[in-house]
Amino acid sequence: MSRLEVFGIDGIPEVRPGDDLAGMIAAAAASGDDTGLVDGDVVVVTQKVVSKAEGMLVEVDPDDPLSHKPLVEQESVRVLRRRGDLVISETTHGFVCANAGIDLSNVDRGWAALLPKDSDWSARRIRDGLRAKAGVEAAVIVSDTFGRPWRRGLTDVAIGVSGIKAIVDLRGTEDTRGRELAVTEVCVADELAGMADLVMGKATGTAAAVVRGVDPAWFGDGHIGREVIRHPSEDLFR
Amino acid sequence: MSRLEVFGIDGIPEVRPGDDLAGMIAAAAASGDDTGLVDGDVVVVTQKVVSKAEGMLVEVDPDDPLSHKPLVEQESVRVLRRRGDLVISETTHGFVCANAGIDLSNVDRGWAALLPKDSDWSARRIRDGLRAKAGVEAAVIVSDTFGRPWRRGLTDVAIGVSGIKAIVDLRGTEDTRGRELAVTEVCVADELAGMADLVMGKATGTAAAVVRGVDPAWFGDGHIGREVIRHPSEDLFR
Repeated sequence: MSRLEVFGIDGIPEVRPGDDLAGMIAAAAASGDDTGLVDGDVVVVTQKVVSKAEGMLVEVDPDDPLSHKPLVEQESVRVLRRRGDLVISETTHGFVCANAGIDLSNVDRGWAALLPKDSDWSARRIRDGLRAKAGVEAAVIVSDTFGRPWRRGLTDVAIGVSGIKAIVDLRGTEDTRGRELAVTEVCVADELAGMADLVMGKATGTAAAVVRGVDPAWFGDGHIGREVIRHPSEDLFR
Repeated sequence: MSRLEVFGIDGIPEVRPGDDLAGMIAAAAASGDDTGLVDGDVVVVTQKVVSKAEGMLVEVDPDDPLSHKPLVEQESVRVLRRRGDLVISETTHGFVCANAGIDLSNVDRGWAALLPKDSDWSARRIRDGLRAKAGVEAAVIVSDTFGRPWRRGLTDVAIGVSGIKAIVDLRGTEDTRGRELAVTEVCVADELAGMADLVMGKATGTAAAVVRGVDPAWFGDGHIGREVIRHPSEDLFR
């Protein structure tokens, strides 16, 4: 029987530009009652601490709640919709999300956090760091919280991966009737990111989580930019 | 530390119209090495077996791969996009998805499975059945596999819930800086459905899974129709 577990990594200290995020995650995972990371773990890290470690912070007027709005335009290549202060745009990275993924929560007053420049690269760097610092062969997912059309509520999705395929292609495998399944390309990276969100909580400051028990067949080269981001030309809603 | 586990319920027999699905799930969960359901479990059940148990099956021409297409029109209130044979529509239930959620996989040749008439009702019925058959107070999510714009790959989402809030509202709670979080309505039902998908696999016939360890604060009255389905008037993409 397939079984997974997920738990938050508590005790990651405040992250500042230039910090060794992988080292901080590995140390926190091995502290307290926890026994540390093991080979085959999938480590999900929230975008906010990745952006902080990479110094993706921009000073904004602390007294103007809309002072980050010019940054939204700057980080966007195409605005899809506007309503009031809300901008839904395609970011320079290719994501479609609100306010170009820029936000002010859990950041020092007077600063805004931008998305990492290349979250797949960020994931690889953290993965390399976990190998170097903790000696573990883990996969890494960088997650962020996005809204979506048609359905209320936010869910966490993967904006970068390393060491795990973002999409597992079940096309061509057979269903229980022996009929070939037409389209079952499952975005396991997004499902794993959402799963990790369930144990992190927006307000508690738990910035990373571990999913343990993932099918080894899913490990391999993965890349959100190449696998998951839909090119505008094949998108029915742009 | 917050910790969740998820595992598939193996050994559910082939489901036919009129079957006692809750009883079959409870029996399968208590068979083999498994110790049965416990209070506080979230049981995620795939739409396909719910539709079968409820007799939501329609005969189609087994030799025509497009014979279910008239059903797609019939089950839709509004077509959003067409490309080739693909129809993205708003269903009579309010979901926006491909082919009105109708599909032919894991169904006998010559039949198509429609979505349940009211998946929130279906979830409540299964929940009541689990209480009656297994004596457990569990929450139930009915899941289905949807695509989405902007991102490739499918993920499982919740189309019905009972006993758990679909959206957990963290608005008004404070972030680690003491700043009030503006919008953090998390659709935990979708994140739980996606998590369950990771242990079910499209082709293996595992039709249900259990998530154990969910925050008791999330249990309560939930309803996908009222909480998650975005009314067209507030949707920026319709």
